Amino acid sequence: MEQKHQLLLDTARRLIRRGAYPHLSKLLSKIHPADIAHLFRYLDLKEQRILFNLIEDPEISAYVLSELDHSTGAQLLEQIDRETITEVLQEMPYDDAVDIIRNMPDELAEEILNIMQDEDSTEIEQLLSYDEDSAGGIMSTEIFSLREDMSVQEAIEALQRAEDVEMVFYLYVTDEYNHLVGVLSLRQLLTVPPQTQLKDIMTRDVIRVTTDTDQEEVAHLVARYNILAIPVVDESNKLMGIVTVDDVIDVMREEATEDIFKMAGASEEELLYGFKSFKIARLRLPWLLVNLFGGVITGYLMWMFKATLEQIVALVSFVPVITGMGGNVGGQSATIVVRGFATGRIDMGTLRRVFFKELRVGFIMGTVCGSTIGLVAWFWHHNPYLGLVVGLAMVTAMTVAASMGVLAPTFFKKIGVDPAIASSPFVQTANDITGILIYFGTATMFLQLLL
Amino acid sequence: MEQKHQLLLDTARRLIRRGAYPHLSKLLSKIHPADIAHLFRYLDLKEQRILFNLIEDPEISAYVLSELDHSTGAQLLEQIDRETITEVLQEMPYDDAVDIIRNMPDELAEEILNIMQDEDSTEIEQLLSYDEDSAGGIMSTEIFSLREDMSVQEAIEALQRAEDVEMVFYLYVTDEYNHLVGVLSLRQLLTVPPQTQLKDIMTRDVIRVTTDTDQEEVAHLVARYNILAIPVVDESNKLMGIVTVDDVIDVMREEATEDIFKMAGASEEELLYGFKSFKIARLRLPWLLVNLFGGVITGYLMWMFKATLEQIVALVSFVPVITGMGGNVGGQSATIVVRGFATGRIDMGTLRRVFFKELRVGFIMGTVCGSTIGLVAWFWHHNPYLGLVVGLAMVTAMTVAASMGVLAPTFFKKIGVDPAIASSPFVQTANDITGILIYFGTATMFLQLLL
Repeated sequence: MEQKHQLLLDTARRLIRRGAYPHLSKLLSKIHPADIAHLFRYLDLKEQRILFNLIEDPEISAYVLSELDHSTGAQLLEQIDRETITEVLQEMPYDDAVDIIRNMPDELAEEILNIMQDEDSTEIEQLLSYDEDSAGGIMSTEIFSLREDMSVQEAIEALQRAEDVEMVFYLYVTDEYNHLVGVLSLRQLLTVPPQTQLKDIMTRDVIRVTTDTDQEEVAHLVARYNILAIPVVDESNKLMGIVTVDDVIDVMREEATEDIFKMAGASEEELLYGFKSFKIARLRLPWLLVNLFGGVITGYLMWMFKATLEQIVALVSFVPVITGMGGNVGGQSATIVVRGFATGRIDMGTLRRVFFKELRVGFIMGTVCGSTIGLVAWFWHHNPYLGLVVGLAMVTAMTVAASMGVLAPTFFKKIGVDPAIASSPFVQTANDITGILIYFGTATMFLQLLL
Repeated sequence: MEQKHQLLLDTARRLIRRGAYPHLSKLLSKIHPADIAHLFRYLDLKEQRILFNLIEDPEISAYVLSELDHSTGAQLLEQIDRETITEVLQEMPYDDAVDIIRNMPDELAEEILNIMQDEDSTEIEQLLSYDEDSAGGIMSTEIFSLREDMSVQEAIEALQRAEDVEMVFYLYVTDEYNHLVGVLSLRQLLTVPPQTQLKDIMTRDVIRVTTDTDQEEVAHLVARYNILAIPVVDESNKLMGIVTVDDVIDVMREEATEDIFKMAGASEEELLYGFKSFKIARLRLPWLLVNLFGGVITGYLMWMFKATLEQIVALVSFVPVITGMGGNVGGQSATIVVRGFATGRIDMGTLRRVFFKELRVGFIMGTVCGSTIGLVAWFWHHNPYLGLVVGLAMVTAMTVAASMGVLAPTFFKKIGVDPAIASSPFVQTANDITGILIYFGTATMFLQLLL
């Protein structure tokens, strides 16, 4: 697969260099739009602009644009004149157009909406009013629905006429007021007599969401019930749109990336900035400065134990391992809890058991690591009591770290903050502090033995 | 949504407590099997057994079992006699049965395969022979395909007879030797004259994978081309199975969880162990011990600079912040690269640019953090040169850490190891070591000024 893309990329570049535009146009008309979108990732801005302008069919331009990742898409749009953008956006399903407009600078978005015809821009502005991460924000409004009093014959005819609707998975059935009342599969239509009324064969128990349902919840439902699409209704059960499984795949990938980035104290927003180092640094810095502050506190606490440290200098050689291991164990527990929350495997009902499990795991691992490091300390500095102090501190620090790894994300979830940000970085700083306190506290307690 | 489940759970528990089994049976027959599976998560083993035995329709039992997460499923199977398990497994699609058999203890799996009828077990053993993470390992073998010389009329009739095939998205077309030669959509059948031959309307360019294609690659293709199913062929292009989008959703969730766990030095395997602390500790320990060793090396290096340290004790107060920040920055870069590899956003072609971007970002953030910590050091210990040393060391350590965060996962990918394990923990230990070397190296160089 990758070879095929390398070949395509090399060919495209060669043709651009040579200025062989008619050839390029022909090549572009032969390959899958998704592959064209993939090519764009490797091209520089100039090459992208040339290639994009050579796509003849505006429908394909629209497809390519909607498949580009957000940063590439935003960069590309800056290169193209407004009329072309508008034309391409009008070719797209409204939800994809809205997605692209959301990622434009505000001014450009306003201009574009002004250029568009009234009809389109009203529809788009309506969609823009939904929260970006809600079912309303990701739904497609081009739905194919049937009235409950239609016959199967009429339904099949309606289906044959409906050319624009690309992916028909389920046939949603509505009453005269456009309220969602049932669902049918395409195959059902084929297996009953043509005069049957839809309301007699439809399934009335339709899994649905409302426009303000969170997109993560939408993804959960689609995954849990193994369905291909989920209808979106407003508060009065009017059918407003549909979220299809391909949107759900994008949501899941996006949410996983978001969580992973947040766990490392970064933000998926930086993907919008491409290679702009200053903007990216500014996104990551606030959180690093918080950790810097935490690090200073850890240092300050060590400094408070200066007297102990000056008497037994050997203590310093275990500072990195004590703080490091606490951070690692806490990070593991936090990761498991954060991911458990995200996938729904852990919730407030099972949390208690998870807490005690992590506590036990932390204690077991602490005992193993504590004995090891205790022996190392004993033989290295020829002092069994130093071994005892280091070992004890390690067991305690690791057990505390594991429980902190459960408590911190839980606390964040309870106060309504995304638990992902409470993962490794936060937990690590917290554990640096408790680790140092435990270590030097233990050492000070056993000071007489150590001397 | 969650309220509904709480209510269901409370009702189920109350009925179990009262022994009101007929009521319970009736309740179970009314709710969606996916919701029954969800209930199991909150029940203890005894309750699970009672509930499972009360499901009357073996098809629903099969559905519930295939929807349980692996650890719950494995626990439940230990409670149920072999004949029931076999009966339920025979109700399932082969690929789901294989999934469950893979997660059984080996002995039990062998017994079950022995009890099964020849036909089923041959098919299942065939599927078991594929790698668990390949297209062959996740594909469903119950495919509905049509011969290219059929007419549309015949195709529709075949479709009406095929009752078992639940989700027909695309109609795959084969030649007389079962080679995959084309694809059709259901809607296409409805919009052409009944006598048309399939080969005249089918699309010949079918996106397909082979049985040994990695499941992650399968997921990429489904996501990239927005398709609902992908056919799986053997090396001679014979149609062997089909991977549907609901399997892909599971794969994506699984792969994301796997990556997230690996990044924290844990393994998603521990989800199989539920609350068994010792087994979980054993899974996480090897990697912790590696880090323990790294921590001892860091300590040893510090110890080598004992002379410097004894002369300027204040140096010790910045050890945690230097190692901590290096670890954080390196972890961020590593996370971005690992996730980039996983989603296909970063590959060897764009890596160079990513490396220099991360280097620049690391340097910018290092300059900000370095100046801050330099000022802190100066005013805290009233020594401008100490400030200079700490600040310089911070800038260097953070820049090196950022580049290490790109290089480590790249190196692991090149040698064929999953880059996810190279993320935060590995990078953090590596950065602890370089951070300490840079810090004490700088301090020793400027020793005259510091005294």
